[in-house]
Amino acid sequence: MNEVLAVRYGARTARKAESYLNYHLYGEPDEPFAMDYYFWLVRGGPAGTILVDCGFGAEPGRRRGRDTLVDPVAALAALGVEAGEVERIVVTHAHYDHIGNLHRFPNAEVVMARREYEFWTGPYAGRLQFAHHVEAGELAHLGTVREQGRLRLVEDTCDLAPGIELVVVGGHTPGQLVVQVGTSTGAVVLAADALHFYEELERDRPFFVLSDLVEMYRGFDVLREMTEDPGRLLVAGHDAEVGKRFPDRVAGLPDGLSDLVVRIAAA
Amino acid sequence: MNEVLAVRYGARTARKAESYLNYHLYGEPDEPFAMDYYFWLVRGGPAGTILVDCGFGAEPGRRRGRDTLVDPVAALAALGVEAGEVERIVVTHAHYDHIGNLHRFPNAEVVMARREYEFWTGPYAGRLQFAHHVEAGELAHLGTVREQGRLRLVEDTCDLAPGIELVVVGGHTPGQLVVQVGTSTGAVVLAADALHFYEELERDRPFFVLSDLVEMYRGFDVLREMTEDPGRLLVAGHDAEVGKRFPDRVAGLPDGLSDLVVRIAAA
Repeated sequence: MNEVLAVRYGARTARKAESYLNYHLYGEPDEPFAMDYYFWLVRGGPAGTILVDCGFGAEPGRRRGRDTLVDPVAALAALGVEAGEVERIVVTHAHYDHIGNLHRFPNAEVVMARREYEFWTGPYAGRLQFAHHVEAGELAHLGTVREQGRLRLVEDTCDLAPGIELVVVGGHTPGQLVVQVGTSTGAVVLAADALHFYEELERDRPFFVLSDLVEMYRGFDVLREMTEDPGRLLVAGHDAEVGKRFPDRVAGLPDGLSDLVVRIAAA
Repeated sequence: MNEVLAVRYGARTARKAESYLNYHLYGEPDEPFAMDYYFWLVRGGPAGTILVDCGFGAEPGRRRGRDTLVDPVAALAALGVEAGEVERIVVTHAHYDHIGNLHRFPNAEVVMARREYEFWTGPYAGRLQFAHHVEAGELAHLGTVREQGRLRLVEDTCDLAPGIELVVVGGHTPGQLVVQVGTSTGAVVLAADALHFYEELERDRPFFVLSDLVEMYRGFDVLREMTEDPGRLLVAGHDAEVGKRFPDRVAGLPDGLSDLVVRIAAA
């Protein structure tokens, strides 16, 4: 069955008042907290190897004050996955920290939601509250992927492969995808940025980057529904908790990488 | 033709970081600024007397730390408009500072957008980022108005009366209405909270209370379109600038009220 790994490739110290939407409404003091950056690897099942997102690029990461803990392509190589051989990447959304290394996977089919692609090629993508979170060159590269016939646009839901289901959960961006992966111990829900931090769901607190507030709250409800059955595992997109909630590690990785690769579900 | 008045009935000192969406993205220091609270009166034209919103109630205003400068019903009486005789109120949206005195106008037809009413009676109205800006009792009163057969729900656009056009401009709430009034000097666009402050439009900066960010930016574009022709007047919903941009006053009002009533357009 599918093995699911989370690779923590980046980090920074965020502040609550700049992470939660209208934090002042909660009447709590601001405080710093750890924000991690992940991409995800699904492999070993009938669907083959699927990369979910591919991290921020080195230069945009540096410019935006994020620490790169490991180059995503190097981490994949250490896991035995050569970039040139990756056949399929699910792009949950087009923010810089999810598509920054896409050009380094020249042979992959890129799967994303149609409404996500259409938004970022549409008339509102350039407005600051949207544009701040993307890189023009990276959006342009999505266009290149399309021209090369490697872009697959999916609608609201999609059975991508046996055991792999994609669901559009908007709110954060117009067409954010959530990836549900069947494993031998139950379904794993890779929420990506439909849930940055578990606290968003536990305290019903929207993240500050959003396109539609109703959709964001609806997304919380969808994630609760998708994970209410026992054994279902929910993986938040940027929470330092992920490494604690999922203590399993991959044996034989080089020092420096061994604690960055988190096994969510074993094969 | 129609006379259009803005009545500044409330005030407070706001802070920029708590008024603009994700103010930290602009890299500017926080600062205090004046926030005014208005309702609007249209009269003297073929459409008769139309009240646009009716201000916050005394108790919610006090509880929320807003200053009441004049009781809206008393201000109307000084302008020769008795509450019991008001035949029509346009409710731009259901926030506490726009419908708080609705129960004091027992004979008025209340006009609002269907999608606004449906949102606040729907499943997402209770989530904190929405619920914070409304009063349960006031929403319940909208239901009472409906039971009494006095609620008129309009769709995307509506010619309410000769020279009076309503346009749904969402973003701030799902069904915010903008009111365009024909006057002898050109159209007046009462933006209400589709534009709290002129700076939102001039710097393309969304307000922090929102339901849909694309709709909010689209709303800015709609307001620009509606007011691009010379002579068209744009009235922001909470901007202290309104009193300066529109220096005309109503003669014969008692002290204390004379500077609170701003004439946007003469009859």
